[in-house]
Amino acid sequence: MARTSERVVDVTVTPVAFRDHPLLNTVGVHEPYALRTIVEITTEGGVSGVGETYGGTVHLERLRRAAAELTGMDVWSLKDLTARTTRALGADTAGGDGMSGMVTGSSTVDRIMAPFDVACLDIQGKIVGRPVSDLLGGAVRPAVPYSAYLFYKWAGHPGEEDDDWGAALDPAGLVDQARRMIETYGFSSIKLKGGVFPPDEEIAAVRALHGAFPDLPLRLDPNAAWSTETSLYVARELDGILQYLEDPTEGLGGMAAVAGRTPTPLATNMCVVSFDDLAPAVAQGAVSIVLSDHHFWGGLRRCGQLSAICEAFGLGMSMHSNSHLGISLAAMTHLAAATPRLTYACDTHWPWKRPDEDVVDTGALRFSEGSVAVPTAPGLGVTLDRDALARLHRQYLDCGLRDRDDTGYMRRFDPSFPAKTPRW
Amino acid sequence: MARTSERVVDVTVTPVAFRDHPLLNTVGVHEPYALRTIVEITTEGGVSGVGETYGGTVHLERLRRAAAELTGMDVWSLKDLTARTTRALGADTAGGDGMSGMVTGSSTVDRIMAPFDVACLDIQGKIVGRPVSDLLGGAVRPAVPYSAYLFYKWAGHPGEEDDDWGAALDPAGLVDQARRMIETYGFSSIKLKGGVFPPDEEIAAVRALHGAFPDLPLRLDPNAAWSTETSLYVARELDGILQYLEDPTEGLGGMAAVAGRTPTPLATNMCVVSFDDLAPAVAQGAVSIVLSDHHFWGGLRRCGQLSAICEAFGLGMSMHSNSHLGISLAAMTHLAAATPRLTYACDTHWPWKRPDEDVVDTGALRFSEGSVAVPTAPGLGVTLDRDALARLHRQYLDCGLRDRDDTGYMRRFDPSFPAKTPRW
Repeated sequence: MARTSERVVDVTVTPVAFRDHPLLNTVGVHEPYALRTIVEITTEGGVSGVGETYGGTVHLERLRRAAAELTGMDVWSLKDLTARTTRALGADTAGGDGMSGMVTGSSTVDRIMAPFDVACLDIQGKIVGRPVSDLLGGAVRPAVPYSAYLFYKWAGHPGEEDDDWGAALDPAGLVDQARRMIETYGFSSIKLKGGVFPPDEEIAAVRALHGAFPDLPLRLDPNAAWSTETSLYVARELDGILQYLEDPTEGLGGMAAVAGRTPTPLATNMCVVSFDDLAPAVAQGAVSIVLSDHHFWGGLRRCGQLSAICEAFGLGMSMHSNSHLGISLAAMTHLAAATPRLTYACDTHWPWKRPDEDVVDTGALRFSEGSVAVPTAPGLGVTLDRDALARLHRQYLDCGLRDRDDTGYMRRFDPSFPAKTPRW
Repeated sequence: MARTSERVVDVTVTPVAFRDHPLLNTVGVHEPYALRTIVEITTEGGVSGVGETYGGTVHLERLRRAAAELTGMDVWSLKDLTARTTRALGADTAGGDGMSGMVTGSSTVDRIMAPFDVACLDIQGKIVGRPVSDLLGGAVRPAVPYSAYLFYKWAGHPGEEDDDWGAALDPAGLVDQARRMIETYGFSSIKLKGGVFPPDEEIAAVRALHGAFPDLPLRLDPNAAWSTETSLYVARELDGILQYLEDPTEGLGGMAAVAGRTPTPLATNMCVVSFDDLAPAVAQGAVSIVLSDHHFWGGLRRCGQLSAICEAFGLGMSMHSNSHLGISLAAMTHLAAATPRLTYACDTHWPWKRPDEDVVDTGALRFSEGSVAVPTAPGLGVTLDRDALARLHRQYLDCGLRDRDDTGYMRRFDPSFPAKTPRW
């Protein structure tokens, strides 16, 4: 049984908003603010830990409901966290994915418990004086490589001044974006968010990137914008250039149809997003690489289980990202460090976040040669900045956004913007 | 990085022997002594932890080689333990399974690291003041149910006096054995080790047990003694009586051939004994239930990964046993308590061990209603008795046995004893 001092006495759930760029994807465009939610757990012994997850009305309400159930929880017990989260949710498990329609199949219990799991591990690490990576089995690499994450983008949000990245709407714009990002962060892999323009334009963009950075692995992620035939066409055109092709088409069946007819490895963070998806994915041979994401998969401990499954079934692993703050980057880094199977550079939206906007001191999260050194302080190794948290919460209250809606925002400027799948 | 105080400074590996009964199985008969190996790890901070594994010349030599590599190891790092064990073994990974030919496919790295993993968790638990079950995610049950484990047996070892269990060579003898075992321990499940007599005799035995204990789930384990046709015959004859049929026939292919033609669930601790076996087992639909065994599967943390895999792929779980002492019973109990998927009563050879022979004080491991309450003291919750360890080590030195050899022992009394598979 848990010692009293290691039981939860307080849980706070704080929605925040931070500035985002007009980044394009197949369902629309990022709004001026990205929404996240910060959780903080405090034990009776006075140790506190933090976690971060995405935003959205339904998700936020569920997090608050779960938080209310956590008083008295043993911070060491994943079983306790799972049971309390399950109880708090009851039958309320549909929707609330918060991903603007792009990732819809993940487990609600896993999504809700994830930030609390991170906070519990932060606390455990502080109690035993060890970084979270040690509690996940131990780091196998001292630093975690991340990938440059390129987006087609507008020069600025409509009605505002251009942002300092400027427009990227063609191959030359993307090559410029990649060059700046690589010069600043040292990335040695490149991912392009596709599904925005007709496939031939995106093929040309990948070729231009390959020409400009011939030694860097390239990935293309159209978020299931294509039919299986279009997927196979793009795979053929980019054969030998792509490290992997991410979610070219929708669903396990579509992915399996593509996978069976191309040598290009297929990766996913859309059709394998929960433990229930793994058996059918393996049976159908739908994917070669699972992009883990602790925000969807139930937290860091559950992602360790995912890793064991991928290893047993010969699946590669990489890591998915959404717009995020420093708590998530710290958690992603500890997890990736402790996951031997995770041999691809991870995705991160970090370069798209303003350096002066975060809820933690980001000094422990500096990039060097495209990698973040695994924090060595006890727990996650990042400290909540309460003034900054209050500022970004105020920004959340003031910005008026409550749910991510890339499509709705796009349609304010292009009322005919399609919502069909596949688009090509 | 690990604090110095949590690094390993000393590892001891001690072979022990304890009295065993002439229990029959398909490869022969148990010798007068069962062999086990006790490991003890001590950290620079002076905290020590224990683990237990089976015996045997090759296994013992490997354990000693691995032990020599562990000085300086971080007791929190499963990755460190895996790497050091792998390095110590090098290319020496064939044989040494120590199971008298009955379980041969398990991973040598996993077998060698298992007792050290248990010892590391014992230390971790002592450092944080928590039982091992908490470090495995938290107990989901306060006590772990075990099964009565019936054996056909001789009255005593040849040339010795009869033991106090007496002979069990027919249905009536087994019912008597079951009655005594259930009265003593309170078990509410029954397992019979089969593969000893022609199938019709064992069918009659199971029916007799069902008649005597109509409310108790029954299992039959012939250790792959049967052809697929014989397996299907037995399954048909015992349809509706068996909770599951364990390893009726050899190999994934054989098991799949049986599984496809009987409604009786098939369990295994012979054809799925390592992580490499899982993907082909799932692909072939070879088994419904995996009998985990932390001694084969790399220890307690690796068994947590096995559990996640079983959950994702819809496999049930139970737990395998070999002749063992109290450290193993404690480890099995913590593991089973923290494994939600493990919903069948676990196997244990405990009733076949003399109460006065162990290397720990067994007071924390008492059976009540067939279950062992999960120890609540920090770590495993059992304390090494150094005098008892010295006694059982002396017994190891004196008994002369160095490798388990059920077949050789049987042939001293029955030179024509067959070694063919399948026997029926």
